Amino acid sequence: MVAIGVALWKYVMKYNPKQHDWFNRDRFVLSNGHTCLFQYCFLHFSGYPAFDFEQLKTYHSEKPESLCPGHPEREADGVEVTTGPLGQGIGNAVGLAMATKHLGAQYNKDGFDVVNNHTWCMIGDACLQEGLGQEAISLAGQWKLNNLTVIYDNNQITCDGSVDMTNSEDINARFRAANWDVIDVFDGCFDVNGIVEALKKARRSQDKPTLVNVRTIIGVGSAVAGKAVSHGVPFKPDDVQQMKKAWGFDPDQTFVIPEAVRNFFSDIPARGEKHVQEWDELVASYTRAHPKLAAEFKSRRDGVLPAEWESFIPSSFLSDKTPSRKSSGECIQPIADKLPTIMIGTADLSPSVNLLYPTKVAFQHPSLKTECNINGTYSGRYIHYGIREHAMAAISNGLAAFAPGTILPITSTFLMFYLYAAPAVRMGALQSLHVIHVATHDSIGAGEDGPTHQPIELAALFRAMPNLTYIRPGDAEEVAGAWTVAIKRNTGPNMISVSRHGLPQLKTTKRDGVAKGAYVLEDAEKPDLTLLGVGAELSMAVDVANALREAHGLKVRVVSFPSHRLFEEQSRQYQRETLKKHEAPVVVIEPYAPLGWERWADAGVCMKTFGHSLTNEFVYKHFGYETGSMASRVWKWLGERKSGEVLPGEWSDL
Amino acid sequence: MVAIGVALWKYVMKYNPKQHDWFNRDRFVLSNGHTCLFQYCFLHFSGYPAFDFEQLKTYHSEKPESLCPGHPEREADGVEVTTGPLGQGIGNAVGLAMATKHLGAQYNKDGFDVVNNHTWCMIGDACLQEGLGQEAISLAGQWKLNNLTVIYDNNQITCDGSVDMTNSEDINARFRAANWDVIDVFDGCFDVNGIVEALKKARRSQDKPTLVNVRTIIGVGSAVAGKAVSHGVPFKPDDVQQMKKAWGFDPDQTFVIPEAVRNFFSDIPARGEKHVQEWDELVASYTRAHPKLAAEFKSRRDGVLPAEWESFIPSSFLSDKTPSRKSSGECIQPIADKLPTIMIGTADLSPSVNLLYPTKVAFQHPSLKTECNINGTYSGRYIHYGIREHAMAAISNGLAAFAPGTILPITSTFLMFYLYAAPAVRMGALQSLHVIHVATHDSIGAGEDGPTHQPIELAALFRAMPNLTYIRPGDAEEVAGAWTVAIKRNTGPNMISVSRHGLPQLKTTKRDGVAKGAYVLEDAEKPDLTLLGVGAELSMAVDVANALREAHGLKVRVVSFPSHRLFEEQSRQYQRETLKKHEAPVVVIEPYAPLGWERWADAGVCMKTFGHSLTNEFVYKHFGYETGSMASRVWKWLGERKSGEVLPGEWSDL
Repeated sequence: MVAIGVALWKYVMKYNPKQHDWFNRDRFVLSNGHTCLFQYCFLHFSGYPAFDFEQLKTYHSEKPESLCPGHPEREADGVEVTTGPLGQGIGNAVGLAMATKHLGAQYNKDGFDVVNNHTWCMIGDACLQEGLGQEAISLAGQWKLNNLTVIYDNNQITCDGSVDMTNSEDINARFRAANWDVIDVFDGCFDVNGIVEALKKARRSQDKPTLVNVRTIIGVGSAVAGKAVSHGVPFKPDDVQQMKKAWGFDPDQTFVIPEAVRNFFSDIPARGEKHVQEWDELVASYTRAHPKLAAEFKSRRDGVLPAEWESFIPSSFLSDKTPSRKSSGECIQPIADKLPTIMIGTADLSPSVNLLYPTKVAFQHPSLKTECNINGTYSGRYIHYGIREHAMAAISNGLAAFAPGTILPITSTFLMFYLYAAPAVRMGALQSLHVIHVATHDSIGAGEDGPTHQPIELAALFRAMPNLTYIRPGDAEEVAGAWTVAIKRNTGPNMISVSRHGLPQLKTTKRDGVAKGAYVLEDAEKPDLTLLGVGAELSMAVDVANALREAHGLKVRVVSFPSHRLFEEQSRQYQRETLKKHEAPVVVIEPYAPLGWERWADAGVCMKTFGHSLTNEFVYKHFGYETGSMASRVWKWLGERKSGEVLPGEWSDL
Repeated sequence: MVAIGVALWKYVMKYNPKQHDWFNRDRFVLSNGHTCLFQYCFLHFSGYPAFDFEQLKTYHSEKPESLCPGHPEREADGVEVTTGPLGQGIGNAVGLAMATKHLGAQYNKDGFDVVNNHTWCMIGDACLQEGLGQEAISLAGQWKLNNLTVIYDNNQITCDGSVDMTNSEDINARFRAANWDVIDVFDGCFDVNGIVEALKKARRSQDKPTLVNVRTIIGVGSAVAGKAVSHGVPFKPDDVQQMKKAWGFDPDQTFVIPEAVRNFFSDIPARGEKHVQEWDELVASYTRAHPKLAAEFKSRRDGVLPAEWESFIPSSFLSDKTPSRKSSGECIQPIADKLPTIMIGTADLSPSVNLLYPTKVAFQHPSLKTECNINGTYSGRYIHYGIREHAMAAISNGLAAFAPGTILPITSTFLMFYLYAAPAVRMGALQSLHVIHVATHDSIGAGEDGPTHQPIELAALFRAMPNLTYIRPGDAEEVAGAWTVAIKRNTGPNMISVSRHGLPQLKTTKRDGVAKGAYVLEDAEKPDLTLLGVGAELSMAVDVANALREAHGLKVRVVSFPSHRLFEEQSRQYQRETLKKHEAPVVVIEPYAPLGWERWADAGVCMKTFGHSLTNEFVYKHFGYETGSMASRVWKWLGERKSGEVLPGEWSDL
């Protein structure tokens, strides 16, 4: 890929190594992240201060602070997104290119293209095999992202051997079917000029994204050139020697960069400074010509939300039974309506996820006029992803990574189908990207759709995922709290998990309580029991508490517990005061796999099996989530604890 | 889709409603499973006894025993696979078609095509948008599965509106690029003959799978025909009335099937019996002509493993430090070598997952000769899936669903990348399909690949997933136990989670212990502490126990704990005897998110963050997994418990 690197960093990309976060820089994504040395080397050659010569030597070392990890990580200057899991990068690149189109549509004026950068994405054969790759390709074609160029390192080799073992597709035809332009380069190992011409032509594309299909030879020049073994196994020492000799290096020296090479790249920093200077001048004259818009553009770049956003969330709600997905809509729609930062997307569930805000305009290419009367514009902030959950999340990571705080992407689908998107949700968490995921139809209450749609085990995944905040609010007031947290908490993704079915509005819920993860809903002195209520089943805990008080005169506390992650962050003292686990046994009610609850409770009315297709009311009944049944099981268990049949510290499934 | 249903069940498919599990039946997969009423109605029309008229009325009812749930479920006769999550069905269908090709290659003889059924798969727009769909399409083209026909209900409508909002691809071109034949049907609502001709032509295809692209109108005849609202919203009562009138029904009657319709389908059962009879006769003469092969064919159909398989697993191992992925290979390779039932697949990680058995032959089309010298044959039992984890798992579900016990599919990739496959792994668990997933490079010990490849939170998902058995063996002896469990436990998928790096071989590990989920490795009277060791870090627990004994004279027990699911199934008495949680505090050592361990332990040396790119030894060090460091934290914590700083029943992260 060296010739491609020379073409990109030396001749084609606009960037400034001394100001890696220049707003209008071209973005580069290494979707085949396992080739990270390629990127580290070119970041060094082109003069990124962080990638000095010593830094290159930290690859595969014992240094935790290395900027050269086994796959590129976003924390390093010049690395736009963390890659490695295949297909993610191409999704991110689509998001980055969308961000340019969207911001350009919002802020560019005649003669003032203040946002017009290009996104370049390297891929290998694997990114084309991963389904995520195709999802992203389809959408880039749909949106005619002519500012996106994908460069295919077409070496026809993967770990297992030659690609004809696993793929006999006509790749160019697949891209053309998705409305891409395709440019072939046949000597990708040495024809730098040919690559430069192809890339420049791609940048000039009028209305399509471009695939540049570059034929390369893996391990070119080595004894294992063109062979799978050159993919993951180090070259043998004598092979390295013969390669060095062949290319005029001293075979006995390592880590040597000839002066000629340094000189070749030496003009880049000055050129980068010039790019920035020109852009600064453009923005200055833009500011004089369009002062109001320029001020908004600046505030977007600064990533500051308007102070009043929180006041857009309703301060109270109707007391009717309301699906929490609907309450969620009531909270976010007014904000989305007014804040240009927010881009809402859905994987074809607009009628279900309640995120259609009043002034909704779809993000589409300006030429589009659909059967269902959508007129395309890139300034639209509502994204129809189609049934492509994985691309939705990966693209949202790209939108969020474009510039911190400039775009706040919101995704939405059923909680169950975030499992399709989970690898990208994870990448967002790993990169501390502020994305909000709205997961509707949570719990078994999704009902008749059945076990395929009832996410028994997904909360365990998202509660376990580092740096993701999973929140299950219990009624509209808590939904308001969940949205407040999700918008404020900008150091990682947040997932708001809401119900399809109507939930009672409780009188004692508190939006501020949500921020603490759990809080006391109903207290009692010298309690006999604490019940933990969660999300769609919060009211069940209240009902069971009442039943136990009435039937047995128990003193029962009820704690609302919308988020493990947020509660974990509280002081041990707050945790103890809230749970009082040392004063009375704690039982959680949640129709999910219990994993993680054992930390906070002693027993759980949880699920050990998949769900069942029954309408809402009957599915709860089928699995024993009726007040009377739950109360009697809890009562029986309290007796077993007293009698010693159940030992202290021993978890029980009720 | 009615005309398509008539074409399929009345004119094209070979099946016997009175013997739904006839081995050589055509398989039908409803990948767009939300249209399940379509399938239920045709199963009724064509005479499946289970789908009697009353059964149809149980759809969306309060009856848990209904065979008409919100999405089709495999438990019902005539339903080959459970569908609903989009894209899964097309993956399953590829697996079903492969099973036919593979068994045909193994057992068919000239004049005796004992396995030659066809697989028919209905899809909607969504299955084409999901990345999984493209992965499956690519592979079907690669393998030239001419016995697979995908029927595209091309109504250009999804929940959000017209498909041109989200997809402007040339679908036919995309399929042709993947080496499929495409047949167009332009009047899919009424042209039954046209559909029948297309399907029959598809069945005759010589060397390609076929897409039959059928243009339909969603909700045809209703007032909302062709509109998105007809996708998920019930028709209005007056609309239903006008439709009934238009088609000559009494508008006031419901659940009426005219005699003419019943008569139209009445020949199906007899025809089905004839298909079976002819096949029985064919098998009888085949048995006379090829008695040995026929006997093997019969034993395959009966799904019985040869009694001696367990003896193929090595009875002992070298005492050298060994990666458990290597031990895993030593266990399964001899079995895979000898058992025709086993089909091993990998998502392009053959060099890493250690599943290449001595007589390995790849499953490929007979015409294939690759650059890397593979000669194709459908009798091959090693599947190169390419970098398509999701399709690998979905296709394996199809292989397993073809006929219980006939094929035992094994999949393999890094544990991290089972997150890409998780929706299909889940569908296997939901359907009780016997598939074995070999997840290598588990724990943070995967090392320099970094946090993108270190599966901190995945064990929580797979431990929470109902009916999946996740096993982390600690050394070669336990790996042998894990494989024994995984092959025996045929009522759902099993996942064996193994290390990239070398693990010490412990003297006291027991393969039989694995089957119980956890067992005592080192015991002590009146213990001060029990340490739980797991998988790649099992030896760490042993080392920490020794350090605490030496430094503080503690009486420390060590329990090896390879599987939550298996341990949960043990008696409460066995659980208590093993853990002795009531006698002494329990600490688990595992570099994963702790979720689920709180049930069995009081504290954990677990992970709260993502991992880090450092070579194996240093990554453990970076996160505090050194014997001395762990021992001192455990010791400090024991003090805090004694002093009351930590309360009983309160979990601690050490």
